[in-house]
Amino acid sequence: MVIQERFEIATRGRGSYDISREVQRRTAAAGIATGLCHLFLHHTSASLMLCENADPEVRADLERFMARLVPDGDPLFAHSAEGPDDMPAHVRTLLSGAELTLPVSDGRCALGTWQGVYLWEHRTQAHRRRLTLTVYGE
Amino acid sequence: MVIQERFEIATRGRGSYDISREVQRRTAAAGIATGLCHLFLHHTSASLMLCENADPEVRADLERFMARLVPDGDPLFAHSAEGPDDMPAHVRTLLSGAELTLPVSDGRCALGTWQGVYLWEHRTQAHRRRLTLTVYGE
Amino acid sequence: MVIQERFEIATRGRGSYDISREVQRRTAAAGIATGLCHLFLHHTSASLMLCENADPEVRADLERFMARLVPDGDPLFAHSAEGPDDMPAHVRTLLSGAELTLPVSDGRCALGTWQGVYLWEHRTQAHRRRLTLTVYGE
Repeated sequence: MVIQERFEIATRGRGSYDISREVQRRTAAAGIATGLCHLFLHHTSASLMLCENADPEVRADLERFMARLVPDGDPLFAHSAEGPDDMPAHVRTLLSGAELTLPVSDGRCALGTWQGVYLWEHRTQAHRRRLTLTVYGE
Repeated sequence: MVIQERFEIATRGRGSYDISREVQRRTAAAGIATGLCHLFLHHTSASLMLCENADPEVRADLERFMARLVPDGDPLFAHSAEGPDDMPAHVRTLLSGAELTLPVSDGRCALGTWQGVYLWEHRTQAHRRRLTLTVYGE
Repeated sequence: MVIQERFEIATRGRGSYDISREVQRRTAAAGIATGLCHLFLHHTSASLMLCENADPEVRADLERFMARLVPDGDPLFAHSAEGPDDMPAHVRTLLSGAELTLPVSDGRCALGTWQGVYLWEHRTQAHRRRLTLTVYGE
């Protein structure tokens, strides 16, 4: 059985947004006991990540790490049509990924105790981000 | 239903190659309306990536970023049997990934408007790269 | 058909551990000829990677690369409750990923000749790591 749906997440600009509950709710509604849940982001300037979900400093540190590794306005980059955060957003997305597959067990995404699912917005401005969730199994 | 096939892509050396059409054509031929398409590269010195498909400068910038982050001939690396681009190719592959899963909707890979699928060759010389495409769903 | 199982891998601290045989054995036992095998690590401080399997120096070089890119005890990081390797382990996991999908052909994971599957422990201390393997297909 395959269940697929599209939905959107509104971001308020750069930062990571916990979508674990949304993903769990939609997966539970799919009515599949055992299988996999695939999440896909239809963009190249935001990513999906699994991250520690207890201490918000972890995500703040990831943000600091990326800001140092891929600085906004870096003169290395030629592609800057949409501003200093344009190309860094593409690089950050490459490094962290725009799709995730999670195991489904007992009708839920079987995340680890400290794992959350986050949408990571890399553009400084707010965006509406489109996702496709596909759950398949038995 | 599961459809699986192997194919090859010839590269002309370091750089990224748009394989979106090839992937779409093979996915359409699989005859699956709703499901997922998995792409796997059987190598550790080239990767598969989703990337912005409008401005070629984006991929040139990604190349520049990787050249700075993982320079060829870096004395840090002990593994250099095949030349100065050998170990950097493995690191670039680790960072960008060698497999991708895409949602299939209405018989096609449901990519975002600005998303393309690229094979990224990290070795300076030309190679023939083997891939496996698996489409499954209903 | 979907076969899913949980298992654990004991690590002896930071470093990469070849789990290819374990994954192949479990996949073969699933009795699925054609499909996909998904591996998921229920942690945010260790990762799963595909890596060259012939020269151990490749993995030593990856370790050196990560040690330089994400140094232990980096003053950039605020989250250090569990020690100087705590936050670097999260960053390394983000960059290398905690889940993998592999094609299954003729009842086996169809890895490339030089591809191995590794669990990469990023904490300096030994850990027991939980994984879920899901094989699906026909």
